[in-house]
Amino acid sequence: MLPSLVQKLIEHFAKLPGIGPKTAQRLVLYLVKSDPKILMDFGQSLINLKEKVINCQQCGQLSEKELCEICRSPRRDKNTICLVAEESDIISLEKSGIFNGLYHVLNGLLSPTEGMTPDKLNIKKLEERIKLGHIKEIIFALNPTIEGETTSLYLANYLKKYNVLLSKLARGLPQGANLEYADEVTLTNALKNRTKV
Amino acid sequence: MLPSLVQKLIEHFAKLPGIGPKTAQRLVLYLVKSDPKILMDFGQSLINLKEKVINCQQCGQLSEKELCEICRSPRRDKNTICLVAEESDIISLEKSGIFNGLYHVLNGLLSPTEGMTPDKLNIKKLEERIKLGHIKEIIFALNPTIEGETTSLYLANYLKKYNVLLSKLARGLPQGANLEYADEVTLTNALKNRTKV
Repeated sequence: MLPSLVQKLIEHFAKLPGIGPKTAQRLVLYLVKSDPKILMDFGQSLINLKEKVINCQQCGQLSEKELCEICRSPRRDKNTICLVAEESDIISLEKSGIFNGLYHVLNGLLSPTEGMTPDKLNIKKLEERIKLGHIKEIIFALNPTIEGETTSLYLANYLKKYNVLLSKLARGLPQGANLEYADEVTLTNALKNRTKV
Repeated sequence: MLPSLVQKLIEHFAKLPGIGPKTAQRLVLYLVKSDPKILMDFGQSLINLKEKVINCQQCGQLSEKELCEICRSPRRDKNTICLVAEESDIISLEKSGIFNGLYHVLNGLLSPTEGMTPDKLNIKKLEERIKLGHIKEIIFALNPTIEGETTSLYLANYLKKYNVLLSKLARGLPQGANLEYADEVTLTNALKNRTKV
């Protein structure tokens, strides 16, 4: 009962993660009433996305050029690499503003049950970067989950042949947490890794 | 730190109702990894939306032709009009499958505080349709809210000069409701409009 074009657009939205058919319908009915120029630009951006956005040849981050902004920057410390699972993790880390080195995107975490085996991860390129010789430390910034820990252990073992310091993000209480509701693993980590006041 | 094109697309998504910047980012990072053909089609659908989708000349529903599917259908009862506030209401009513007449989209509900005055509503075209003479009943299918009731009262008064039966959707308990949690207005309506078992 809706025009096929509207129906098609609803289906496109409904395929996005976390968006159900009802929300998709609401979004499209909202878009129908918006400025044609915005729609044109929105549509063109989607079309251009795959044509103009590539992965950085060095670290794997999204980029419009062969090397991403961070890898090109002369102000970043080329001796430290922060290893992340996804591109979005770089965004979160950059927002903190505390890290000044380079990144490396693994493209996932090990999870044999979901078919994520070491060959699926972007490890080969990491090794190539290590072999170039100027990397002194690799910080594992992986999720503190089973998959993240498994990946850390696997990589720590795999990369130990290289003379590179391997470190990982501290485990402890997150800012603003409530001790009462902290889980046991977090509390154990927070106690074990306690720091001087 | 993200390519400007990716950033722009995130902003487009973030402008949609109910989608914040975090969700927008997640959607775009999902789209970056999807099939280029899908992106192409998604983008083209957005561009075409404004060019190819218009409002039905008769009822106001979204349509690719001058008259929408429902208004064109020879099987629909041309003597009854169901008056709705938005296009999406037609979708809900059509899903019930119980109504076989035509529709009329008001494009909103009266709400003087939000600047929704009678001249903003699609009333003129409704009058034109009534004047053609073959409409016997207009069913007000408006939200049971202050705005909906105000609009019903205004229209009932405005349209009383025409020889057309005006009715509105029944008020009562919704299917699956729990008497314990029903509000007083709903219970009052349910008691007043009680039907024979």
